[in-house]
Amino acid sequence: MSTLGIVKRNITRADPVAVEKLGRFGVATLHEAMGRLGLMKPYLRPVYRGARLCGTAVTVLLQPGDNWMMHVAAEQIQPGDVVVAACTTENEDGFFGDLLATSFQARGARGLVIDGGVRDVDELERMGFPVFSKAIHAKGTIKATLGSVNVTVVCAGAIVHPGDVVVADVDGVVVVPAAQAQAVADAAEKRESFEGEKRAKLASGVLGLDMYKMREPLAAAGLKYID
Amino acid sequence: MSTLGIVKRNITRADPVAVEKLGRFGVATLHEAMGRLGLMKPYLRPVYRGARLCGTAVTVLLQPGDNWMMHVAAEQIQPGDVVVAACTTENEDGFFGDLLATSFQARGARGLVIDGGVRDVDELERMGFPVFSKAIHAKGTIKATLGSVNVTVVCAGAIVHPGDVVVADVDGVVVVPAAQAQAVADAAEKRESFEGEKRAKLASGVLGLDMYKMREPLAAAGLKYID
Amino acid sequence: MSTLGIVKRNITRADPVAVEKLGRFGVATLHEAMGRLGLMKPYLRPVYRGARLCGTAVTVLLQPGDNWMMHVAAEQIQPGDVVVAACTTENEDGFFGDLLATSFQARGARGLVIDGGVRDVDELERMGFPVFSKAIHAKGTIKATLGSVNVTVVCAGAIVHPGDVVVADVDGVVVVPAAQAQAVADAAEKRESFEGEKRAKLASGVLGLDMYKMREPLAAAGLKYID
Amino acid sequence: MSTLGIVKRNITRADPVAVEKLGRFGVATLHEAMGRLGLMKPYLRPVYRGARLCGTAVTVLLQPGDNWMMHVAAEQIQPGDVVVAACTTENEDGFFGDLLATSFQARGARGLVIDGGVRDVDELERMGFPVFSKAIHAKGTIKATLGSVNVTVVCAGAIVHPGDVVVADVDGVVVVPAAQAQAVADAAEKRESFEGEKRAKLASGVLGLDMYKMREPLAAAGLKYID
Amino acid sequence: MSTLGIVKRNITRADPVAVEKLGRFGVATLHEAMGRLGLMKPYLRPVYRGARLCGTAVTVLLQPGDNWMMHVAAEQIQPGDVVVAACTTENEDGFFGDLLATSFQARGARGLVIDGGVRDVDELERMGFPVFSKAIHAKGTIKATLGSVNVTVVCAGAIVHPGDVVVADVDGVVVVPAAQAQAVADAAEKRESFEGEKRAKLASGVLGLDMYKMREPLAAAGLKYID
Amino acid sequence: MSTLGIVKRNITRADPVAVEKLGRFGVATLHEAMGRLGLMKPYLRPVYRGARLCGTAVTVLLQPGDNWMMHVAAEQIQPGDVVVAACTTENEDGFFGDLLATSFQARGARGLVIDGGVRDVDELERMGFPVFSKAIHAKGTIKATLGSVNVTVVCAGAIVHPGDVVVADVDGVVVVPAAQAQAVADAAEKRESFEGEKRAKLASGVLGLDMYKMREPLAAAGLKYID
Repeated sequence: MSTLGIVKRNITRADPVAVEKLGRFGVATLHEAMGRLGLMKPYLRPVYRGARLCGTAVTVLLQPGDNWMMHVAAEQIQPGDVVVAACTTENEDGFFGDLLATSFQARGARGLVIDGGVRDVDELERMGFPVFSKAIHAKGTIKATLGSVNVTVVCAGAIVHPGDVVVADVDGVVVVPAAQAQAVADAAEKRESFEGEKRAKLASGVLGLDMYKMREPLAAAGLKYID
Repeated sequence: MSTLGIVKRNITRADPVAVEKLGRFGVATLHEAMGRLGLMKPYLRPVYRGARLCGTAVTVLLQPGDNWMMHVAAEQIQPGDVVVAACTTENEDGFFGDLLATSFQARGARGLVIDGGVRDVDELERMGFPVFSKAIHAKGTIKATLGSVNVTVVCAGAIVHPGDVVVADVDGVVVVPAAQAQAVADAAEKRESFEGEKRAKLASGVLGLDMYKMREPLAAAGLKYID
Repeated sequence: MSTLGIVKRNITRADPVAVEKLGRFGVATLHEAMGRLGLMKPYLRPVYRGARLCGTAVTVLLQPGDNWMMHVAAEQIQPGDVVVAACTTENEDGFFGDLLATSFQARGARGLVIDGGVRDVDELERMGFPVFSKAIHAKGTIKATLGSVNVTVVCAGAIVHPGDVVVADVDGVVVVPAAQAQAVADAAEKRESFEGEKRAKLASGVLGLDMYKMREPLAAAGLKYID
Repeated sequence: MSTLGIVKRNITRADPVAVEKLGRFGVATLHEAMGRLGLMKPYLRPVYRGARLCGTAVTVLLQPGDNWMMHVAAEQIQPGDVVVAACTTENEDGFFGDLLATSFQARGARGLVIDGGVRDVDELERMGFPVFSKAIHAKGTIKATLGSVNVTVVCAGAIVHPGDVVVADVDGVVVVPAAQAQAVADAAEKRESFEGEKRAKLASGVLGLDMYKMREPLAAAGLKYID
Repeated sequence: MSTLGIVKRNITRADPVAVEKLGRFGVATLHEAMGRLGLMKPYLRPVYRGARLCGTAVTVLLQPGDNWMMHVAAEQIQPGDVVVAACTTENEDGFFGDLLATSFQARGARGLVIDGGVRDVDELERMGFPVFSKAIHAKGTIKATLGSVNVTVVCAGAIVHPGDVVVADVDGVVVVPAAQAQAVADAAEKRESFEGEKRAKLASGVLGLDMYKMREPLAAAGLKYID
Repeated sequence: MSTLGIVKRNITRADPVAVEKLGRFGVATLHEAMGRLGLMKPYLRPVYRGARLCGTAVTVLLQPGDNWMMHVAAEQIQPGDVVVAACTTENEDGFFGDLLATSFQARGARGLVIDGGVRDVDELERMGFPVFSKAIHAKGTIKATLGSVNVTVVCAGAIVHPGDVVVADVDGVVVVPAAQAQAVADAAEKRESFEGEKRAKLASGVLGLDMYKMREPLAAAGLKYID
């Protein structure tokens, strides 16, 4: 009945071409392109300025104070993957540090998104291994209880299936279901193509009120100007 | 009965000379000069290192998940203004991003203080558009419900009247009522003029205990030294 | 019955040689070397990037909104000390700024750890005076009520005795009891000596599963691989 | 420049007839009648089940850890008043207990709303003195620093002027400006008169979709039913 | 690409016999019977003492400050259902009150679990309509933006599919996937059948150390008794 | 170097006569009698209305998600003890439920204070076993890692030595060091003897301003009455 104690080896990763294309866009744009869905909660923050990642999810379900499954996950990493770690309860211990980062990086991982804590932040920055976490915490963890690898998890409020695309930058973390990767990338591209023109208009002093034709609906809604 | 659905066009802005003078001082100094009042809550943080702003407030009252009034506010901005955005409830969605920043900047705005979330943080830094917010969140917003512009608002615990001076730096955000702008600037100047001498004394090893003549009141309060 | 209103002048500081040695290690390593104990809660954060400190604790027990005891503490600082400030209740006011930092630095202090707020953060960075705090807050404090100096305090969840060693970096803050300073430093050294080899193996692609011989205990615990 | 150290004796209280009428309605209804404004933040909670109050505000601005102004406020209380206590910073100490409650009750106060902590909760319940607070905390306070009485304050995110009507029940706390008391009471009455009929219809199985004629706008917005 | 704007009418509800059986057990027992999975986060609390519910999930995805979809959901309720409401972002407004409760109850709903706020708490208790929420908040909501009904949602950290069984009591809220309902109910029954004997032993003074045979593994782990 | 993996069997409990006397006073009174020290943080709350306890501390240091040490602690309980449970990190799992409560009660324990979560709250109330906790959470825990019993712990911000007296009621939790038990009880008695007279005066309408002779110091501090 439980999804604990399981490692799924064969997962269907999103198409690499679509993943690369998704990596060209910011998280805010991708979230809009998905119809304003797919975001993790904003308490996940990059552990160093400039961190940014895009890749296919290898998921981990951790137990509180225990990072055993991180080592199990390492073996499942393929180049281009991002590890997404959830926990069976709220816990901010330092599940991850420079040794695991070295191992993940050696396997080709592009970063980590974790609904928990990490440590060795200076080393992570030096290594160029991007991490988005709930906390920075030196607290060490044990290796005693089974969780799972590559099961569906909820990480910071978002559902992540193994193989989904995860993109993270300073604005947040977004999950794109593997099957929608190409369509979302295309929608993002279209969306962004409109932005340059809008930006230029706004920069020239045109108001959004006029550019988006808002004056009429605002008046219809009852907006009153007073002096 | 409601203050929703209103845009006040003519507001009385603090005297520009006083505003410029206020801009020379740090937030901590200004807050002291006001008798230790006027601070917003410390959960407002600069979205990038080095952000700093000083200007006259154009206020916005937002609805949760809705940034329609930001566009209405844009039209009310005059050079030297700072937009101060409150919300009718607690909400950390990304009400503001690089397009609105482009528009605000084109109108002459000096920055944004918002009791909510913003996105496109890297672009905001590149543009040099300072923002102090409660959260960084990629979550997009809609344009469906009226709030107000240039009404009195409570932003992060502080009352802000349109035209008040708002100063923000790494230490926080302070609101100086328009009518007190010159007096507070003068008090801050006086206060700061004393600080150099104090700093020099303390740097030379003189103790605050002696400089501030605290030994006697401490003894009177019953302080006991033991070995 | 109370420990308020007391200043202890003669405290037993940890051996300076051990302190210097402790300063060579990161907080995560030291916490592991102590058997995974001694950490303060992770809400304490450096007020500027790159802050790091190691020294012997001069402790202060503050009252809410009152930094009188900071001035009393200044006199008790000896070169190599770190001030550790607790409060009788939760309070995030700005108990500390550049003037006190100037005084502390003149006395030879190596930094401050405070379960409360501080201000003048830009100046602290310019001075190179490292501070780890719960909040950044411009809110000023008064000088009216007695606390204590050099009594045992609880700071961010950790017990600190005057003279204990406090080490802080980006990963957190750890307290090493004075009597254990040398032993913890030695244990940290030993621990770190193993890390280089482990890192090299992991970097070469060896898995933690194999390096730590985890496959058998994982199987014994019931881990199942599925396709 | 400061509003600290001031006690305003003559305040204009809302019309008692309107106050009594406001007291007949729940907080949710009053907030709706005001156009969905005037609520304090929901972290304010009744300290005992069944607490409920309605009265005119005597405001207090406290300093952290200091309840001196509560005694000053007691003298300003008239029968039918509610004390509304704000603080110059966030602080959850126990500013108020059974002795002050005895004094306030003797003066005719109908309760307390406080953006801070209180204690002696069992006694408050026995006395029938309703309190809505941010915290329950046994922590005692001192009497050392001036705040103010009957100045405009921000309490739990809402602006309160002395004399405004404050109504609190299990759903929250709402502030009705004195000048709007009668109009809001009338609007609430009208609103409530519609509710009985609506409730009866819904209880009989009529759907809100039909009663509020939502099907058409939902379809226009693009809602799709699938099987 | 989006799951917004959708109402799924035909959902597969868990077997009613299994649902009734699940309703006989406490949340803690059911969570254990599922292998320690399925719990929502503990910030969800009953809005009145004694609230308890068990039923099949009709799910709702709300927009911040908007309860339009609640009315759409009402039509999809069948007797024995529990409405589970998630939101596209964090928002504690009062999405639900006594009118909607009347409608839901008329449709046969057994209660509501909502990752947001509710109001009219006294009426909900009088009606005997159990609600588990993140907040109690009088703040009203609008009807302007589409969400969805009967899509998979994340509510308070747990995945809920329409038709899953949701059980809530004072200890928390647990989700049992529809397909596992009978098996979990059986496992809970077995688990509970052991508890009576254990309880009797412990009540008689037998120690868990002996009943669970922990002394040997504790010694093996290195536990030391000192005097 | 570590205090993990230790059970201290012989502890010095506070004098039972003093403990009984302490049990007659409320937490607020005891905290005042100690010079306003000794309180745990106010996030600890009784799990049912009316819970109250007083006894000598048997301390437990737990690991996150692990309640093994609770069983070890049970054996160390003597009639009149209260178990005080801390954790090596922040964790709100349900470390304690009705089975452990049955065991603790059989050993003569008077209740539990825990910086974590508990479950089976309805049963705890039925058993009359008072618990003060940080959270109510159905989440089960494992038995895998050693903590300690009867070492000094920090629980919710307060230092607790085994044998200290712990008193808890609706206002909070206070720790009285064993050696001070009699003196604090006496001071509380003296303090309370004054309260009746004060209460009577205040009830008769005498103001605290006059009873405590505050008018002069308020004027000296600069308080201004305006009309």
